Amino acid sequence: MSEIQLAPKIVPRFQDELDQLRARLLVMAGQAEEQVRCAVRALVEHDSDLAERVFMGDQAINALDLEIDERCFKLLALHQPVATDLRVIVSGVKINRDLERVGDFAVNIAEAALRYMEHPPVKRLIDIPRMADLAQGMLRDALNAYVSLDTKLAAEVIERDDALDGIKGQVFRELLSYIVGNPAITEPALDLILISRHLERIGDHATNIAEEVIFIASGRAVRHHVREGSSD
Amino acid sequence: MSEIQLAPKIVPRFQDELDQLRARLLVMAGQAEEQVRCAVRALVEHDSDLAERVFMGDQAINALDLEIDERCFKLLALHQPVATDLRVIVSGVKINRDLERVGDFAVNIAEAALRYMEHPPVKRLIDIPRMADLAQGMLRDALNAYVSLDTKLAAEVIERDDALDGIKGQVFRELLSYIVGNPAITEPALDLILISRHLERIGDHATNIAEEVIFIASGRAVRHHVREGSSD
Repeated sequence: MSEIQLAPKIVPRFQDELDQLRARLLVMAGQAEEQVRCAVRALVEHDSDLAERVFMGDQAINALDLEIDERCFKLLALHQPVATDLRVIVSGVKINRDLERVGDFAVNIAEAALRYMEHPPVKRLIDIPRMADLAQGMLRDALNAYVSLDTKLAAEVIERDDALDGIKGQVFRELLSYIVGNPAITEPALDLILISRHLERIGDHATNIAEEVIFIASGRAVRHHVREGSSD
Repeated sequence: MSEIQLAPKIVPRFQDELDQLRARLLVMAGQAEEQVRCAVRALVEHDSDLAERVFMGDQAINALDLEIDERCFKLLALHQPVATDLRVIVSGVKINRDLERVGDFAVNIAEAALRYMEHPPVKRLIDIPRMADLAQGMLRDALNAYVSLDTKLAAEVIERDDALDGIKGQVFRELLSYIVGNPAITEPALDLILISRHLERIGDHATNIAEEVIFIASGRAVRHHVREGSSD
């Protein structure tokens, strides 16, 4: 009833807006994760409609990308935050870009899945869905770590990246031997190799996000120490 | 002689620091470009020493990445800029990340080049050096556009991305037919395909940077309009 209580309705409080930023990044991460899930399911189930749905879904992620960027920009311009709050927002800008890239990779996987469907299946797909599960879990935990500034969880995410790299190498060697044995399958086998690389890159983006969390919490950049030349 | 003239020596002026940020981003772009040039030369000239030099060179880029991030952070924290200056700095954070990724791709190209050297050459390399030239030019012009806020140059960079995508598709189809004709060359041919994709991704990062320039100058985000699903 007092003016003090009314004030927040007129100018939203900084901490509320910061909470909204976190909430929107969680929404975007959820959508990116769902896009990856759909794209890999389209591949495994030879479902071209589902692949098409991934293309449509990318528009929502792109809209969120612009919205979140704008939020970060306004938070910086209007509230001129310092210390941890400033780090949360600057990291928000970077995490937003990471998530947008994950969305692009989901589209790339769906494109490769459509091409893959034009040929007889190369093999039963086990490793690629496993890679997708791993990458999705890393993404989810990285965002949870960001929202709760949980550095222990962030460190776990960074550690899990090695497993993803390991499976990628396995997939590559196996498919290479298939191609050498039967060059007729070169095209679809190459698409599987590409998909496994897209999934590994999604893990890299989750790792980037986890590294940001450690930076926010400690003011200490850990990137370039924990991983070396892991991208492709 | 007066206190007014002395003041800038004690607290560096904001515009000077902003100029330094631009200068450091130019240095980083120059180094990233040089890394790409070395990596592709290592491939073309079968020069493993040069490939090793790319691995060493990545440390300097990583150090610059941390330094530039810190500069952006301090500019935001100490000067609380608004409007165009704020956009220049927030975009600086993103461009820094783009350049760091370009450095990673140069490392990936050098790794693939080393693997490629273990086999007899698949073909005379013409398209890949052409892609590298294109990507390097896009990177250079994107940074020049950022420093001088030249939206016309930025728009040109964005347009050139299609040429790069086109050559990538050509490289892929040609090498695919080589593999089908002679599966013994699968491994080195795959590495050439991967290298062409890395170069195309470097072009994507140059495009990202050019899009930031248009955003800074106009306050209008152009990404998600000019290009769709171009990444891999």
